[in-house]
Amino acid sequence: MTALRRSWIDSANSPDTDFPLNNLPYGVFSTEDSAPRCGVAIGDQIVDVKGLEEAGILTSGEPPVFSKPSWNAFMELGPEAWNGFRGALMALLAEKTGLKERVKPYLVPMAEARMHMPFEVSEYTDFYAGKNHAVNVGTMFRGPENALPPNWLHIPIGYNGRASSVVVSGTDVRRPWGQLKAPDMEAPVFAPCKRFDLELEMGAIVGVPSSGPITVQEADDMIFGYVLLNDWSARDIQAWEYQPLGPFQAKATATTISPWIVTKAALEPFRTSTPEREKELLPYLQEPTPMLYDITLEVTLAPDGKEASTIARTNYSQMYYSAAQQLAHHTTSGCPMRVGDLLGSGTISGPTKAERGSLLELSWGGKEPLTLESGETRNFLEDGDTLTLAGAAKGDGVRVGFGVCAGKVLPALDDPFKR
Amino acid sequence: MTALRRSWIDSANSPDTDFPLNNLPYGVFSTEDSAPRCGVAIGDQIVDVKGLEEAGILTSGEPPVFSKPSWNAFMELGPEAWNGFRGALMALLAEKTGLKERVKPYLVPMAEARMHMPFEVSEYTDFYAGKNHAVNVGTMFRGPENALPPNWLHIPIGYNGRASSVVVSGTDVRRPWGQLKAPDMEAPVFAPCKRFDLELEMGAIVGVPSSGPITVQEADDMIFGYVLLNDWSARDIQAWEYQPLGPFQAKATATTISPWIVTKAALEPFRTSTPEREKELLPYLQEPTPMLYDITLEVTLAPDGKEASTIARTNYSQMYYSAAQQLAHHTTSGCPMRVGDLLGSGTISGPTKAERGSLLELSWGGKEPLTLESGETRNFLEDGDTLTLAGAAKGDGVRVGFGVCAGKVLPALDDPFKR
Repeated sequence: MTALRRSWIDSANSPDTDFPLNNLPYGVFSTEDSAPRCGVAIGDQIVDVKGLEEAGILTSGEPPVFSKPSWNAFMELGPEAWNGFRGALMALLAEKTGLKERVKPYLVPMAEARMHMPFEVSEYTDFYAGKNHAVNVGTMFRGPENALPPNWLHIPIGYNGRASSVVVSGTDVRRPWGQLKAPDMEAPVFAPCKRFDLELEMGAIVGVPSSGPITVQEADDMIFGYVLLNDWSARDIQAWEYQPLGPFQAKATATTISPWIVTKAALEPFRTSTPEREKELLPYLQEPTPMLYDITLEVTLAPDGKEASTIARTNYSQMYYSAAQQLAHHTTSGCPMRVGDLLGSGTISGPTKAERGSLLELSWGGKEPLTLESGETRNFLEDGDTLTLAGAAKGDGVRVGFGVCAGKVLPALDDPFKR
Repeated sequence: MTALRRSWIDSANSPDTDFPLNNLPYGVFSTEDSAPRCGVAIGDQIVDVKGLEEAGILTSGEPPVFSKPSWNAFMELGPEAWNGFRGALMALLAEKTGLKERVKPYLVPMAEARMHMPFEVSEYTDFYAGKNHAVNVGTMFRGPENALPPNWLHIPIGYNGRASSVVVSGTDVRRPWGQLKAPDMEAPVFAPCKRFDLELEMGAIVGVPSSGPITVQEADDMIFGYVLLNDWSARDIQAWEYQPLGPFQAKATATTISPWIVTKAALEPFRTSTPEREKELLPYLQEPTPMLYDITLEVTLAPDGKEASTIARTNYSQMYYSAAQQLAHHTTSGCPMRVGDLLGSGTISGPTKAERGSLLELSWGGKEPLTLESGETRNFLEDGDTLTLAGAAKGDGVRVGFGVCAGKVLPALDDPFKR
C-alpha cells in the first residue's frame, strides 16, 4: 500500500491532510495582496509556483508557463514536462532538501487564500456512465424492465455540456427559471425550477490534444488530472425539454468543480479496473490496463445556518466506464480534443440507497423524502442549502485528497429579466 | 426595396456579386505573401483591414483589434464600435470618397486569397427549429401522428455541439467511423458511417456576452452576424447513440461554415417575421419585431469530377424560431453566453420536396433515391462528393450574399487508429 512521503512542511505529514507530498495538486489562488496565480497545495500551505518560476527556482518552459492564472499553458507542455515539474517540486518539498530556505518565502497559508478556476475549460462533456445511476433513473422513468437503454452497455453515453457554466467551488448557484410542464398541465409555464438537484461526479481534464480517433491507452495518456464535479441539474426543466435531443437548459445553470487538480501521477497507486463487463465491449473500448481509481466520495448537505448531514457515500470505482474509455469514444468520429477539455464522469452511485449520488435517486423522484440530521426533510434542494462534495484516495496513513467542491443554492430571481 | 450603393471598386457594382458596398462581410484571409489576417469582402476584392489599421486609415480600438487573425477582438468592442467601423469603411469604399488612392494598396484580389476561420468559436449550439424538417424527420421515425415532439411548438429545441469540430469552407471532411447497429443486428459494430449527410443551416454569431436570462430584443442586439452552416451528420451513428441524451459523435466530425460573416447591419433591410404561431409562445419567447431574414438558400452536390446538381432550394424565412428567440431561450437557466458563441439554426427545409435541407429528407430515409444531373443517384453522401451551400438576401439590383460554404467528403480511414 502507498505510504506517506514526508515533507519539511509539518502539516503535510498529518494522516488527515488531503495534501501530503504524495499529492501536490494544482490550483489558482489569490490573497489580499496578490492577484490570482498558479499554486500547489501542500498540507495547509500553498506554494506560489509563479513566484518560484520568476525566482528561477523552478522552471518549466520558455516562455514562462505561469505568467497567466491558469494551468493551461503548463498542460500544453505535455506529459514529459508534467513529470519533470512534479519531480522537481517533490524534491524541493521533501524532508531532505537543501532548498528549504529558498522555498519558504513562497509559501502562503491556505487559510488566507481565495481559490479560482484552476484552468480554462475549452469544452465540457458530461457522461452517463455510472450503471447504478442509469438503472435507478431508468427504473423511475421507464420501469425496471427497460431501465437501461439498449446502447448503454456498448457505449459510454455522453452529451456536450456548456463550458461557460463551469464554476469553481465556493461560487453561489442561483436557482434557475425555465419552462416547466408537469404531465397533468395543459401548457408549459415559465417559472423557477422546483426540482433542483446535485450530481456527484468526477471530472477528467484533457491535457494533450488529438485530431482523430485514439485508443483507450492513448486517451489515458492524454488525461492531465481529475477534480470533483457537481453537475447541478434542474429535473423539472429536463423532463420537459430533453426529448428528442437531450438535456440543454436543465444542465446550463452551473457545474461546480473543486479548485485543486489532482494529477494522474498522484493517483497512479490507486488504479483499479472497471467492473466486470455484462456484454463484451467492442475492441476500441477495451481497457488494456486498469484505468479507474479507488476514490472514496461523500456528499454533505447543510441547510442555511444548520449542521451538515452526509447524504451519500460512494466510490469512483463504481463507474462502468473509465474516463479513458469515455475520451476514446469521444474521438471515434474524428472529433478534435483540446487542452482544457473537461469530461464529467456521470453521476456516481453505489448499489445501496446510501450510496446514491443525486437527490433524484435518494428521494426516489421525490417520493421518499430524506431526513437530515437537523430533522428537516428533502426531496430536492431548498434555497440556502450548501452542497459539499469531498473525496480522497487512501493509502497506508496517507490520503491523496481533492479538498472540497461546495456551492450554496440562492433563491431564484423575482424577475429574471430585470436589470 | 433596397437599392445598390455604388463603390469605386467596379466589381462591387455588379448585380451578380455577393459582396456589394451594401454587404461588407468580415473574414480572415491569407495570400502567398502574407499570414492570415482580417479582411472585408468588396466585389472581387478583399480589403486588408489589418493593413488599414496599421496605416492609421481605419482605427477601431486601442490596443489594435486586428493584430490577431480573428474578428473576436473586434466583436468585444460592442455594437457602437461595430456601427462606427462599418460606417467608416463604407465611406472609404463609396464611389465618392477622397481616400481611394490611400485605400487601393490594401486591396487583395479574392482569387489570390485563401480563407480561414473568421472567428474563434467559443461554444457551438445547434437547434432543431425548422418545422418542416422536424415534421419530416418525426414522420419518418415516429409516424405522422407523433411527428412533432410535445415540446416543439413551445421551445426552440437545441443541444450543445462541439466547437472544436467547426471548420471553414473548403476543408475536406473525412467520413467518420462509429458504432453502428441496424435494428436487425444483434450487436453493434465499429465501422465507417454508411449514411453520411448534410444539414443546410444558418449560423448566428454572438458578439456581446451575457450573464443571466435575456429578452428576445436583448438577444437580437447581441448577435453580430450570420454565416451559412453545414452540420455534417452521421445518421446511422445518431440512430444508435442518441437515446436518451441526444446526438454526440454523429455530429462531432465536422460542421462547416462560410468564411464571410455577413453582419446584422447588412441584413437589416431583409428582416421578416417568423411564421404564424400554431400555439401561443410564452411571453419570454415572443418577438417584439421581425427577427428572421429573407435569405434564399441553395445546396448543390457534385460527385467527384462531375457536374454539380442543385438538390435543394429554400429560404431562411422558413424557420419557426429566429436566432434571437433561440439565444433568449439559451439563457433562461442563467447560462452565460460569450463572444464567439455560434448558434446553428437547425436544418432549413421548405414545405415541398425540392426545398428539403438534408438527404435524409430528400431521399426519405434512403427509400426514394435522388437522381443527379450526371445520372447518378444518391440516398446519402458518397466519397468524393462536394457539397456547396450558397445564399443571398436580394434587393433591387443588389444581393447581400454569403459566398459559399463547401466541403468534399473524403473516404473513411482504413484503420482509424493507425498513426
